[in-house]
Amino acid sequence: MSLSMYDASAPVFVRALGQLRHVLRKADEHARAQGWDPQVLLQMRLYPDMFPLLRQVQIATDMAKNAMARLAGVEPLRFEDDETAFAQLDARIERAIAYIGGFTPDQLEGSATRPVTVPTRSRGDLHFLGRDYLFGWTIPNLYFHIATAYGLLRHAGVPLGKADFLGPVGTGPVR
Amino acid sequence: MSLSMYDASAPVFVRALGQLRHVLRKADEHARAQGWDPQVLLQMRLYPDMFPLLRQVQIATDMAKNAMARLAGVEPLRFEDDETAFAQLDARIERAIAYIGGFTPDQLEGSATRPVTVPTRSRGDLHFLGRDYLFGWTIPNLYFHIATAYGLLRHAGVPLGKADFLGPVGTGPVR
Repeated sequence: MSLSMYDASAPVFVRALGQLRHVLRKADEHARAQGWDPQVLLQMRLYPDMFPLLRQVQIATDMAKNAMARLAGVEPLRFEDDETAFAQLDARIERAIAYIGGFTPDQLEGSATRPVTVPTRSRGDLHFLGRDYLFGWTIPNLYFHIATAYGLLRHAGVPLGKADFLGPVGTGPVR
Repeated sequence: MSLSMYDASAPVFVRALGQLRHVLRKADEHARAQGWDPQVLLQMRLYPDMFPLLRQVQIATDMAKNAMARLAGVEPLRFEDDETAFAQLDARIERAIAYIGGFTPDQLEGSATRPVTVPTRSRGDLHFLGRDYLFGWTIPNLYFHIATAYGLLRHAGVPLGKADFLGPVGTGPVR
């Protein structure tokens, strides 16, 4: 059995975003329990020229939803980037997951060698073949922004563990 | 053209580890230029119960080299985990990259459905099929530890940008 581009994208994205949502819910709950203004967490950064938590979440969702569309050869759905609260980020992630779920394996047939163009502000248009776009851009960027969100929440003292990032893995000991 | 388990592992691991090495070299240089004791960076953590930089690097290399071996159905080469300096971490990464380079696409044929067992301290043996091991364990863990290393170095003020994490991407504008 070989691997398809769909196997390496849709379920991977949905899982990563689902864990991001889980991490953010724990962060929101913790902020409430501590009596913290949630805006403080949403605007936290690991360094002044890094993006704050809120933007990390926006970028992570963009990476996944845009990749799904581009690999299928369609124009990505555009999000307004107008979230200002945890509940809105939660809804954004849910919307991205639903959008990704709307693509079928058939739509990604042949996408390993499909040309993909990614517009960037700093470097103009970047050109990839689908496989390099998935493995050299989308997946590293997706985990980069999720791990950065996780790391800054850990740094802020939110009680999280790597299992919150990974989600359920493997099966337990064979009995 | 479809995707192989080899496409989704060896070149992905080599690239990610190569960028980690690049990031660490910049950190080492910066520490020297600032007159910092390199041990301070190597022992930095984002939170007291997270691993320090040095251990993040050890785990990232383990994730990649162990996955390559297990997907090929062989016992992973064991590293001694005795590094105490940037130069030794650099050599560890180089060794992991060379080890990964020693596997052939043929050895990973059929590995999507190969049973893989991962011994863990906290949860006993975890059991996966190869594809789930690669996409649900190895790749998220690999980027988690590399992004955490990057994030703590950024937090410490080491001048890095996301391009240092990603490496060369796509091709420039078509002229």
